[in-house]
Amino acid sequence: MGAGMARALLRAGHRVVGCDLREEARDALAAAGARVVASPSELGAEVGIVVCVVVSAEQVEDVLFGRGGLASRLRRGALFVGCSTVAPEFAVATATRLAELGVGYLDAPISGGAVKAEAGALSVMASGPPAAFEQASAVLEATAENVFRMGDAVGLGSSMKMINQLLAGVHIAAAGEAVALGAKVGLEPQTVYDVICKSAGNSWMFENRVPRILSGDYKPHSAVEIFIKDLGIVLQTAGRDRFPTPLAAVAHQLFTMAASAGMGRWDDAAVAKVYQRLSDIELP
Amino acid sequence: MGAGMARALLRAGHRVVGCDLREEARDALAAAGARVVASPSELGAEVGIVVCVVVSAEQVEDVLFGRGGLASRLRRGALFVGCSTVAPEFAVATATRLAELGVGYLDAPISGGAVKAEAGALSVMASGPPAAFEQASAVLEATAENVFRMGDAVGLGSSMKMINQLLAGVHIAAAGEAVALGAKVGLEPQTVYDVICKSAGNSWMFENRVPRILSGDYKPHSAVEIFIKDLGIVLQTAGRDRFPTPLAAVAHQLFTMAASAGMGRWDDAAVAKVYQRLSDIELP
Repeated sequence: MGAGMARALLRAGHRVVGCDLREEARDALAAAGARVVASPSELGAEVGIVVCVVVSAEQVEDVLFGRGGLASRLRRGALFVGCSTVAPEFAVATATRLAELGVGYLDAPISGGAVKAEAGALSVMASGPPAAFEQASAVLEATAENVFRMGDAVGLGSSMKMINQLLAGVHIAAAGEAVALGAKVGLEPQTVYDVICKSAGNSWMFENRVPRILSGDYKPHSAVEIFIKDLGIVLQTAGRDRFPTPLAAVAHQLFTMAASAGMGRWDDAAVAKVYQRLSDIELP
Repeated sequence: MGAGMARALLRAGHRVVGCDLREEARDALAAAGARVVASPSELGAEVGIVVCVVVSAEQVEDVLFGRGGLASRLRRGALFVGCSTVAPEFAVATATRLAELGVGYLDAPISGGAVKAEAGALSVMASGPPAAFEQASAVLEATAENVFRMGDAVGLGSSMKMINQLLAGVHIAAAGEAVALGAKVGLEPQTVYDVICKSAGNSWMFENRVPRILSGDYKPHSAVEIFIKDLGIVLQTAGRDRFPTPLAAVAHQLFTMAASAGMGRWDDAAVAKVYQRLSDIELP
């Protein structure tokens, strides 16, 4: 998704410095017209806005404060746009640490996948001070179709993304449970798909993910491990506040079961295979 | 929904005998042009097709074999159209008992609510012998917008409806969990609704039910008790086959909690209130 956003920015006429640990990703981005670097530390004072698209809070931490050590090299007045799905409290803590260095923070988790990123048509659930939105406006313009502005406080963007991921994760797991039980009681998975897509049981995720179960193709668009992380954020955040999320907890366990069965890097639709491994049902 | 179907049949020019235990329901149907009776036994030999729209398997049992005793009064060659959401094995058992009396069975659970019933625009998930479909064709024509034909075997219609209800119930409960956790972490429920309706976390039920949470109006369109029953059918059917349905089980518990808190006859969206009763969040 980061590469797609970089290319969308290049198309919009921006100067882009791309950073990726993988050489082939750097080569592809260089071919698209970006200057490329292999370490976040090399971005340094050159860039005014860092758009950080990594998987986890641990990776954000490493980019900014780890060996990469980008934070201390950014110039005062630079803006860090955090696009990863992280716990709201991590976004707040990171913004606070960057503020001490004179660097702004836009809490801007993204949604839409690689295809929408490539098209400059992501959804962004963002929060931060008006000045941060203004500073990021050209970047958001070039990369996003929808910018949901959640408020001035860092953390609200990540909170909204967390709520979306709660629903998305539960819906993917429910789609697996439904198709699997359908198979158990003698319904063709394709028929279940066709009927549910026109019925009150439908969800965006059901419609999007079940075709992967039907084709038996679990090449990852979004991996099981991502939902272990994202539902983990739900459980960690809600748990800290002593707030119950029993459905998110069960969905988290189902994705954990999929990973336990060796499917952590498979597409998240592979949660349906958990039910298959535990029974005599046949899925494609 | 039964009254709506009866009126749709009257509009289509069919002769309808309506049966309801409640006098006001009979009066309304009589005003629409139906002959009305107060007991299923009075339908007797007069009708060729019985369209049975009651809440539960217990009520179907009572209509056919209880005090009402309709089954033994039906003429050979009559057709019973079972529209209730019941366990697939109950549909099979009922069809078998009726077959012994020379009465056919169409396993035809309906979906769409009172408004769609009134408009003759229900969805029907139906299975049964081709002859039963043929016999019911004018009824289906007048009352349904979509007829999903699931196969020749009684039980497949009820199985498909069960899968739809599994998803619907989990999605309603997930909507409650998501809006409630959103409120806990500082997101306005209305904002959560607006963003999710345009995001990958959306579901048909989220979009349909959350406005009831937003308005704080839990006048029942479909009551909490219905999902205790319908998810109970999922647990009973899957459990009999030793098939796991952890998400359905948790959703069933959440609706049970709502009923335990006195909201069994409230709209099913009241599952969100479970989270409110257990915390300091404010919902409308």
